[in-house]
Amino acid sequence: MTEVFEERTRRCQQRLQAVDADGVVCFPSTNLYYLSGFREEPGERHLLLFVPAAGDPAFVAPEMYDEQLAEESWVADVRTWSDGDDPLDLVRDVAADLDLAGGRLLLDDRMWALFTQDLRAALPDAGFGLASEVLEPLRTRKDDAEVAALRRAAAVADDVSVAVRELGADAVGMTEAELAREIESRLADAGGEEPAFETIVGAGPNGAKPHHGHGDREIEPGDPVVLDFGAFVDGYPGDQTRTVVFDGSPPEEFDRAHRAVREALRAGIEAVEPGVTAESVDRAAREVVESYGYGERFVHRTGHGVGLDVHEGPYIVEGNETELEPGMVFSVEPGVYLPGEFGVRIEDLVVVTGDGCERLNDSPRTWQPL
Amino acid sequence: MTEVFEERTRRCQQRLQAVDADGVVCFPSTNLYYLSGFREEPGERHLLLFVPAAGDPAFVAPEMYDEQLAEESWVADVRTWSDGDDPLDLVRDVAADLDLAGGRLLLDDRMWALFTQDLRAALPDAGFGLASEVLEPLRTRKDDAEVAALRRAAAVADDVSVAVRELGADAVGMTEAELAREIESRLADAGGEEPAFETIVGAGPNGAKPHHGHGDREIEPGDPVVLDFGAFVDGYPGDQTRTVVFDGSPPEEFDRAHRAVREALRAGIEAVEPGVTAESVDRAAREVVESYGYGERFVHRTGHGVGLDVHEGPYIVEGNETELEPGMVFSVEPGVYLPGEFGVRIEDLVVVTGDGCERLNDSPRTWQPL
Repeated sequence: MTEVFEERTRRCQQRLQAVDADGVVCFPSTNLYYLSGFREEPGERHLLLFVPAAGDPAFVAPEMYDEQLAEESWVADVRTWSDGDDPLDLVRDVAADLDLAGGRLLLDDRMWALFTQDLRAALPDAGFGLASEVLEPLRTRKDDAEVAALRRAAAVADDVSVAVRELGADAVGMTEAELAREIESRLADAGGEEPAFETIVGAGPNGAKPHHGHGDREIEPGDPVVLDFGAFVDGYPGDQTRTVVFDGSPPEEFDRAHRAVREALRAGIEAVEPGVTAESVDRAAREVVESYGYGERFVHRTGHGVGLDVHEGPYIVEGNETELEPGMVFSVEPGVYLPGEFGVRIEDLVVVTGDGCERLNDSPRTWQPL
Repeated sequence: MTEVFEERTRRCQQRLQAVDADGVVCFPSTNLYYLSGFREEPGERHLLLFVPAAGDPAFVAPEMYDEQLAEESWVADVRTWSDGDDPLDLVRDVAADLDLAGGRLLLDDRMWALFTQDLRAALPDAGFGLASEVLEPLRTRKDDAEVAALRRAAAVADDVSVAVRELGADAVGMTEAELAREIESRLADAGGEEPAFETIVGAGPNGAKPHHGHGDREIEPGDPVVLDFGAFVDGYPGDQTRTVVFDGSPPEEFDRAHRAVREALRAGIEAVEPGVTAESVDRAAREVVESYGYGERFVHRTGHGVGLDVHEGPYIVEGNETELEPGMVFSVEPGVYLPGEFGVRIEDLVVVTGDGCERLNDSPRTWQPL
């Protein structure tokens, strides 16, 4: 198990040399896990992984992580500090030992300003870029074990989608928050580790706010309800959206908007194959929505990569000329949002294959009660 | 409700002027919520709040947040960009309009490097510091509504602590993960919004790793179990730790270690009053642990501030000469960790009052079954 993390670090080092950078500095994030095997939430204490372009990496970490780092990471060089010490003394030592003090250092894209400011102060002769320059090309191409985990996470989301839709008229009268809790409980029962993001239950006009989570609104008969959720399985997230009606008749325009989004989803997915650009998938989906006259109501990109992070490259957006490659996994999730009325979004994850793509989700995409 | 956020912004502006800084730039974080009333998770899209030292603040935000920002924030100047646009065009416009382009800008301490690098590129004549320089003195002094929310969150954690301990021998044979899920379910039933952090259930030797979350280990008779959990209530977290034995006889040394920690907790809390330094509270607790011969086993600071963030200032640590003031809320949580054997940590939250402090937690601190 340890080997996969060391192999990734060695590939990262090859890329560092190729782009003429001297090192990567990670802080607790999925990048740090991807390279070291150690997983932790971001925090206010200096916990940094220095990966030089050649040689072995080193941790600067709080003393109380000593045992966990030894157990969970393959990185042998761990330098610890105690609460009350100045961790920057260790930062300067490591930078000197790894020959990074005057180099071009690529910072974890999610490193807090708290630490980037400190690194700039401690290493005044260094230059700074972003770690995604070398890590995104590695992370976007999933290996078989990663795709298998994503497939399991998708199956959990699909199972819960079907089960929740079978509530039918019983969901009417529940608040969005109650239904969200029900979904999260079922995700856990189905084998999910924890929700991959704030579960979205957007009923009626709340569905028109793409990033509405869930609130106190009670689901009414005829409400279109946007259901967007997923859970981690073996560290990889599910992320799936359906827009459904639990009972009663939806607003007049809803069926047509739903059809537009469903067709846009299909067109987007059909456009996926190795060698095409990310933006061409966005265009394929957007053209369908535009043909229905809803172009102005599709207010976001068509999708995002999914891996250790729920949102990562490749972003399926105008302007992204990244060419798709086998092993890339991303969402295709067109939407139409009519403020004050309702929203529609339908989302599947796909993995790029040798000659097209495989859908990871297969639960029903129609809006009618199951 | 809106007024409190605008008032905070005006106080922030007074402090900016006092420290000779030109503005604060927040990204989705508790700082952004504290000033604007808008709450969102960090994400990869540019969503930035610019607060100049004088005049009105402005948002740069993705188009799809338009409706939510209008509803949830008092900030009227919202400039939106669409997926596929370059948000840095708006950043440059806002910086010019608010006279920030050549100023000293204080960045949200948790802003991702992804955005700090962009701001540095877009505003090459600006200088950069950290927003905590002006916001920490404001945020550490809680107003009455904030203390009331923290009190409710503490009561939820206390109630669940008692209920879980009443499992007694029924907890034996559960895995740490199962017990964690049970705790989180009870927190939700008791009115918690969501867990404030990864619930810690550290049984036997796992308790000796201060940042162990929960794993597959089954709780055995006689296992000391570290239980550290809390949930948000009205946006403010609970954070409480007890170390207990559900059934059977613990290791021989355990009772003495537990007594050392309990006495250290009491000594720490007794040291709290307005005007004393944060580090003096750390010393008061540490001296007790040292007197038992466990000084080397108390591997972390004594506590941390608690507010919109579970970890914030004031940190109760050697070297922090911040003087305590009424309205500050923080944890006192001494611990003793014997690798390979067990750990003990006991944690209460306190709020500094006019002449001492009030404990927010009051559930039993002993280890014996209730």
